[in-house]
Amino acid sequence: MPKRRRTGQPFRDEFSSMNQKKTAITPTRQENYPEWYQQVIRGADLAENSPVRGCMVIKPWGYGIWENMQYHLDAMFKATGHENAYFPLLIPMSFLEKEAQHVEGFAKECAVVTHHRLEPDGQGGLRPAGPLEEPLIIRPTSETVIGAMFSKWVQSYRDLPIKINQWANVMRWEMRTRMFLRTSEFLWQEGHTAHATEAEAWEETRQMLDVYADFAENYMAVPVIKGEKTETERFPGAVSTLTIEAMMQDCKALQAGTSHFLGQTFSRAQEIKFQSETGDEQFAWTTSWGVSTRLIGALIMTHSDDDGLVLPPRLAPKHIVISPIYRDDAQRTEVMDYCHQLQRALTAVSYDGRPLRVWLDDRDIRGGEKKWQHIRKGYPLRLEIGARDIAQDSVFLARRDQSGSAAITRTELLANVVKILDEIQAGLLQQAMERRERNSHRIDSLAEFREFFGRDNEESAEQGGFVYAHWSESPAMHEVLKELKVTPRCLPLNAEDEPGQCLFTGQPSTRRLIFAKSY
Amino acid sequence: MPKRRRTGQPFRDEFSSMNQKKTAITPTRQENYPEWYQQVIRGADLAENSPVRGCMVIKPWGYGIWENMQYHLDAMFKATGHENAYFPLLIPMSFLEKEAQHVEGFAKECAVVTHHRLEPDGQGGLRPAGPLEEPLIIRPTSETVIGAMFSKWVQSYRDLPIKINQWANVMRWEMRTRMFLRTSEFLWQEGHTAHATEAEAWEETRQMLDVYADFAENYMAVPVIKGEKTETERFPGAVSTLTIEAMMQDCKALQAGTSHFLGQTFSRAQEIKFQSETGDEQFAWTTSWGVSTRLIGALIMTHSDDDGLVLPPRLAPKHIVISPIYRDDAQRTEVMDYCHQLQRALTAVSYDGRPLRVWLDDRDIRGGEKKWQHIRKGYPLRLEIGARDIAQDSVFLARRDQSGSAAITRTELLANVVKILDEIQAGLLQQAMERRERNSHRIDSLAEFREFFGRDNEESAEQGGFVYAHWSESPAMHEVLKELKVTPRCLPLNAEDEPGQCLFTGQPSTRRLIFAKSY
Repeated sequence: MPKRRRTGQPFRDEFSSMNQKKTAITPTRQENYPEWYQQVIRGADLAENSPVRGCMVIKPWGYGIWENMQYHLDAMFKATGHENAYFPLLIPMSFLEKEAQHVEGFAKECAVVTHHRLEPDGQGGLRPAGPLEEPLIIRPTSETVIGAMFSKWVQSYRDLPIKINQWANVMRWEMRTRMFLRTSEFLWQEGHTAHATEAEAWEETRQMLDVYADFAENYMAVPVIKGEKTETERFPGAVSTLTIEAMMQDCKALQAGTSHFLGQTFSRAQEIKFQSETGDEQFAWTTSWGVSTRLIGALIMTHSDDDGLVLPPRLAPKHIVISPIYRDDAQRTEVMDYCHQLQRALTAVSYDGRPLRVWLDDRDIRGGEKKWQHIRKGYPLRLEIGARDIAQDSVFLARRDQSGSAAITRTELLANVVKILDEIQAGLLQQAMERRERNSHRIDSLAEFREFFGRDNEESAEQGGFVYAHWSESPAMHEVLKELKVTPRCLPLNAEDEPGQCLFTGQPSTRRLIFAKSY
Repeated sequence: MPKRRRTGQPFRDEFSSMNQKKTAITPTRQENYPEWYQQVIRGADLAENSPVRGCMVIKPWGYGIWENMQYHLDAMFKATGHENAYFPLLIPMSFLEKEAQHVEGFAKECAVVTHHRLEPDGQGGLRPAGPLEEPLIIRPTSETVIGAMFSKWVQSYRDLPIKINQWANVMRWEMRTRMFLRTSEFLWQEGHTAHATEAEAWEETRQMLDVYADFAENYMAVPVIKGEKTETERFPGAVSTLTIEAMMQDCKALQAGTSHFLGQTFSRAQEIKFQSETGDEQFAWTTSWGVSTRLIGALIMTHSDDDGLVLPPRLAPKHIVISPIYRDDAQRTEVMDYCHQLQRALTAVSYDGRPLRVWLDDRDIRGGEKKWQHIRKGYPLRLEIGARDIAQDSVFLARRDQSGSAAITRTELLANVVKILDEIQAGLLQQAMERRERNSHRIDSLAEFREFFGRDNEESAEQGGFVYAHWSESPAMHEVLKELKVTPRCLPLNAEDEPGQCLFTGQPSTRRLIFAKSY
């Protein structure tokens, strides 16, 4: 919980310590944060826009991050007793109609399949043919179709709990898209569970939020606040939505994952009923929870700098890149031999339960260009090896989280490489944590609240921060928030009660809510 | 290459050695092979039909097989220099139109998205709204959309080769579906590569066929014949389609994977052009290759028996299931302690590069019911452990590929478990290999060809086998094949030239083609 903000103190000075040197990414964060974000993605070759509106192509370096996220999350889901399965991409329109709030939440962004073939249009082109009796929706989320299966699978209390996860693509027709953060199609995982009791379903909802928070902090090096969404921010149809909220470098909030307690809403709409141990018929209690490729956006915006992508080592597609340096064929043979040997030795080192991932980059391009490519792509460690270094059995080591490079012997490198990667990982988390603390404030008057958020604008790197304030769900609050383009982020879990007055209505309030501009 | 069939010899006697005992699956293979297949899937809880026409739900045990297939294939793709990426689900209709043969091949089975939201229909329901300017197709395969990206990425010979793989869902609107074998939506991987030279693209096409054959034989224990498809069987737009063909237990053929040499067909349609080393502009040479969840169907139909699923250990979701047996709480504590310890000891054993996967099944259901569940699910090894066994530090071990069970000491078990699994894996391959050899025939007259295939019918377990015969691409051949419901499977690669006469036209022929009934 942050300290009360002293009036007159500058709000934040995130980028003021930057040198005015030339940067690998133009513009810098300070100059234009949104555009900097796009250029980091481009510079690291993570993804690009596709010819299909709102859909992106995730390129190998970006997909490699997602593969590592999947690898670790999947292990965490399995360790908590979940199994993977796969359900249909298409959902009959009538399934969506069954739960009123749910359909209201998604109707405006559904891709609708209405035909099942193409035929010649008589003018050399094609047109849709074979109209379907019932339109099908490309899943925006799968509660309805998975619920329909659960209702078949669940008869008795013995069939519960069901704890399923699905890795899948989903589609939400977005009008304004931004790579990774908001795209019409995205990749995600969606957990869906059904339980015999309310308590057990709540325990599941909280457990999966903990899993997400653990993953965000310990793998992504992104500190998050666990909290509960207010009514207007809930998942359509949920009784309660828990969230992890992260702060980006521009001090905007990003919702990084959600875990929903669905109560009996969906089990009533879909008849997920079971005979209890005492013989009576009851509705099951369900949950759902998900994280998506949006996490890659969160990763980029938390750690990257004006030279490009910075990757927490645990999720880096490759940990180390080796650049051989030679002048002629004789040197080439010698240097390449040494590099291959070192690559093998490094690959034999275990980091985070798997072998180190090392790329030997012997492409025939200029050394400077190569180095800056490696920096923009965020390799945690870069090694440069020339004939002279070999003579001394040493290499030049550069860390992405520091400037410059230094000689290190081969022996020292092999002995310390894991420690160095751990240091980078811990340093990134620490830095993000400190930034969040610096930019979290308690505010107790509406005037100060308005001043705090009113001075920001879209293109600036200054977007305020997290404001902890007393509140009440009221039209007065939403009016101010709309005007300032601020959103209620969450009620932090485990926050202690604290008597106060709602900033917007003067009503008594017992807990502070976090407000922020957001993605 | 099979021997010439002696006239009068019974064609095959696949199931004749079966005991007439009660089986866990009804009907048996002999009674009704197609229905047996469905019942094996149901008995092992692999998948079931969904409420969405032609789409199935892959349940955890079935998805677990797919996860293991992905794990090993993905490693093989990466070892051969491919990287994963992700491309849009939706393809603009105009992209498909660019390559005439390609669109002709897929137009009749395209799911078409025409609207991007739903609105109230005024009668309490919903209707599609927000018509799209251009209809979008759910990818039946991604050559066109990936090609569009390649054309942006490839400028110079330095940008080649590009070697990409995508794990994805695809949609082909099938009228007659069968679980795993033919569903409207299925999961697959599709490799897409672009090369500077024809030779290199051909090398890639052949290499990936080799990878598939290696995977089929060494992981799935399914022997395959590598061959080239004839003209009418090629992938729409391909210059040549290579295939791996497997024989199921009913002696029908199943195409298990394909690798396409696309020549410059798609690069011309999509302008994938580059400046060569000598400065002139050339079209790239492309390939594509894929395997899908259909492989699970091939696995089931190759190894399973009248008691249900039989799994090659390397792809089993779990290798071993332990059933504790006890009469009272005192025994329960003792037995469960022992079982947990054994589970830990087994999990510490490395098999195929990963820890053994062991399930301790302490569900409170009858022992007989439990045992038959385990058999139907195809656990390679089952352990039964009771208080008396513990006293002797021994357990009862049953192998899914043999009947009965036998006592084995804990020490022996731990020392030999990997060897036993290897034996099972090798035995399954051997058995499938022998079956294929028994049911492969050289036929040199049309009368014999007609007799061979004419006596089969859909519901019987007798579906012929592989017939190697001389041929020529001709209307006469296709007429006979259509009448007999037989398809040309492939021209085996590396088969030696052999002079002969086409069975259907009498034309001279230099190579035998494989004919079979097929899935």
